[in-house]
Formats: sequence, C-alpha cells, structure tokens
Amino acid sequence: MPKEIARIYEIGLVTEVKGDISTIEIHPEYSEALLRIETKEYLDVLFWIPLSRDILQVHPRGDRSVPVRGVFSTRSPARPNNIGVTKVRLIERNGNIIKVKGLDAYKGTSVIDIKSGRGASNGNGHH
Amino acid sequence: MPKEIARIYEIGLVTEVKGDISTIEIHPEYSEALLRIETKEYLDVLFWIPLSRDILQVHPRGDRSVPVRGVFSTRSPARPNNIGVTKVRLIERNGNIIKVKGLDAYKGTSVIDIKSGRGASNGNGHH
Repeated sequence: MPKEIARIYEIGLVTEVKGDISTIEIHPEYSEALLRIETKEYLDVLFWIPLSRDILQVHPRGDRSVPVRGVFSTRSPARPNNIGVTKVRLIERNGNIIKVKGLDAYKGTSVIDIKSGRGASNGNGHH
Repeated sequence: MPKEIARIYEIGLVTEVKGDISTIEIHPEYSEALLRIETKEYLDVLFWIPLSRDILQVHPRGDRSVPVRGVFSTRSPARPNNIGVTKVRLIERNGNIIKVKGLDAYKGTSVIDIKSGRGASNGNGHH
C-alpha cells in the first residue's frame, strides 16, 4: 500500500495567464519567504495539478505514434504525486505578486513552492 | 490559515549513497512507471525532507556573512513544503533499482517523484 508521508499546503495561486506571462499571488502568511526574490532572474516554480494519480504509463505528449513509457521518464502531469516543476524567468515583483515568463500552468493552479532556479550551465544542489 | 490541498505518497527510497552515486529503490506498486527510463540520461528527482515548515527566511548556505533572504529565492531544504528537486544523471537501471549521479539527499530519504530531466540548454515544460 502507498505510504503517505506528508501534506501539501498551497502557498499561492496562478491568478492570471496572458500569453507566456503568468501572475502568481503568494498568500500573505508566506510573504516573508519572498524577501529579496527580485534579485533572482530564474526561478523553479512547483505547482499541484489534481489529475489522476493512478496513471503510470503514457504516450509522451499524448502522441499515440510515440511508444508508451513510464511517467517517471516523462513530464506528464498525471503521476503518483501530481507535482509540476517549471523553470521560469522572473519579470517583476510587486509585493506578494510576481510575474514570471514560461510557466506552463493554467489560471487557478495551486502553487506549492518557489526555488532559486538553475541557469543554463551551472550545477544544481541546494544554494 | 494554510490551505491543505494534497497528500504526498512515497514512491521509493534512497537506499545507498557512495560518494556522488546514489541508489534509489522504487516501491513495487510503482514499477510500471519506470518503463523505458533507461533511455534517459538526465532525470529530475523530487524528494521529501521532513524539516521545519515554519522557516521562511535563511542565510543562504547557512553562511551568516550572506544577507538573509526568503526561502523562495533559495534552495534551502527547510521551506513551507519540504520538497527537494535535484537534476541527476542516470547511471544504471536494474529492475526497480536505479543508480544516479549528483543526488544531494541522504540515505533513507523518501523519493516522491522522478521526471525526465532538462539538459543543459533545452527548454522546459511537460514532455
């Protein structure tokens, strides 16, 4: 049986999507976590997409001409834990509201984390 | 008050760490999600680190000479939802067991998702 290990809280919402620019509004109780975020160019945004958790194999991009593979080697949103991760460019911060470029999430999506992003050529890890 | 939106299930465990090579064992109920993973070179591994969820600001890397910033512009593991994301290189697959290079998580860490990784210069998004 699957082992539940944690609960996820919403830290903010995608409140507007216009072309490739998305607006994220962070809930007031997490405001302090935004301190100095405007100094970063790239961020990783984590969000929750409440789709099926039981789909373990897919045709990548839904293309039936591409052989089926397990979801752990795709970025398909339907997966055991429905977390999406997208690298975005920070365009603007205004209080609790940030505008980012490149977030592939619909309006109304729950945001669950934001991290300092990795540039094109640097490493990874906690920094 | 924080809004709970989902529960997280463990999909596997970090069972060994030797230098920069880590072994991940995926639980049998998620085996199908590994189909054809061996064809990928880079993966993003998501894991859960049960630290404080109340720390909203840190000195990056714990270095007190660096000004405090909000956790949303760091990769500090203590954050409202304690999800870590690390890009790794897939070294080997043997059934439910994969070896990866570059995972910065201790032995015993709960793995919660694995995704196709982004190379050094390609885009992002669901693929």
